[in-house]
Amino acid sequence: MSRVRVHNFSVSLDGFGTGEGQSFEAPFGHAGTRLHEWFFRTRAFQSMHGAGGGEVGVDDALAQAWGPGIGAEIMGRGKFGPQQGPWPDLEWKGWWGDDPPFHTPVYVLTHQLRPTLEMQGGTTFHFVDAEPAEVLRLARDAADGGDVRIGGGPSVVRAFLEADLIDHLHVVIVPILLGRGTRLWDGMEGLEERFPEIESVSTPSGVTHVVFNRP
Amino acid sequence: MSRVRVHNFSVSLDGFGTGEGQSFEAPFGHAGTRLHEWFFRTRAFQSMHGAGGGEVGVDDALAQAWGPGIGAEIMGRGKFGPQQGPWPDLEWKGWWGDDPPFHTPVYVLTHQLRPTLEMQGGTTFHFVDAEPAEVLRLARDAADGGDVRIGGGPSVVRAFLEADLIDHLHVVIVPILLGRGTRLWDGMEGLEERFPEIESVSTPSGVTHVVFNRP
Repeated sequence: MSRVRVHNFSVSLDGFGTGEGQSFEAPFGHAGTRLHEWFFRTRAFQSMHGAGGGEVGVDDALAQAWGPGIGAEIMGRGKFGPQQGPWPDLEWKGWWGDDPPFHTPVYVLTHQLRPTLEMQGGTTFHFVDAEPAEVLRLARDAADGGDVRIGGGPSVVRAFLEADLIDHLHVVIVPILLGRGTRLWDGMEGLEERFPEIESVSTPSGVTHVVFNRP
Repeated sequence: MSRVRVHNFSVSLDGFGTGEGQSFEAPFGHAGTRLHEWFFRTRAFQSMHGAGGGEVGVDDALAQAWGPGIGAEIMGRGKFGPQQGPWPDLEWKGWWGDDPPFHTPVYVLTHQLRPTLEMQGGTTFHFVDAEPAEVLRLARDAADGGDVRIGGGPSVVRAFLEADLIDHLHVVIVPILLGRGTRLWDGMEGLEERFPEIESVSTPSGVTHVVFNRP
């Protein structure tokens, strides 16, 4: 059975998955790059973006799990871009340039539909206005037996958790306090009861990986 | 210089330091004992309560740091007991029986003053209605060169963090989601900037110790 997975999802100690004030200059708002410094340093991230090098420690090992077995991604509109309301400019094709690192179909959740975008390297962005279970059916069909990754942001991960659709949740706790932004954990009382396997590991970068899994 | 320390302060992944609905039967409300299972298993806790045995791994090593060098504690009224408003019963002398595990002066913050309680084993409960800086002066004098421990609950730790009075903060993240209760981290944006040393370690019990320290 195809599984639904979240990987490399960084939150601050106070539980914010993104800061306040997202813009073209600041995709994570006032958080800046602070939630993802650990990730940028990994070989997983560097190779995702066509660069060589990067560290190969425990952070990297966990970050690498992002790719294998994934056949489609679902993301929120805020991950695709900072625009709100009607699209001001159909030339915007995401933050990632002509060859995004996904290499699979990607379903972007938005009330503002627009034509499908076929990018280089196998990434195709579909824009859909649907409930979690409904878009998951689409993504599973497209994944052709592969797993579906929920790519974020925090509101999208939360919606899928609320619908109890996630089988594997890899969260990375970064020891900073953002104070404001969008929280991952609100309304999640008892979430741990749904996951028989919960593991935590702190790494030399200072972050702590927490993995919730159900077989 | 005497330092101000917090030890073994457990929070859920969503940042709650205590649950909702504190009562005589449930000192941590609906959290029950879930935030402190890791602590109960340690030799530190067992010996604090006159029992033998207990585990001696990393959790215990960190838990043991609670005692040495401490000359006084400051706690909130909610840690001393679940009563609110005027004391219904001066016979209540805390959760700990005749010989509480503190063995130092303890300052209980409350708007409802009552006479000092001299307990066995060197614990003396003083009831004070004061701002953090003011009660800290009292506790420092009483500690006679020793450090002062801020014993919780979450509102008291937060008040001392807001006043920037804490030098050492040991928080234990328990991978459960409480959903409701009293949060530790609210309004703490940028807290990490005040602590040059921040370390995290996950242990086999599944919790993660995060230590903020300034020399």
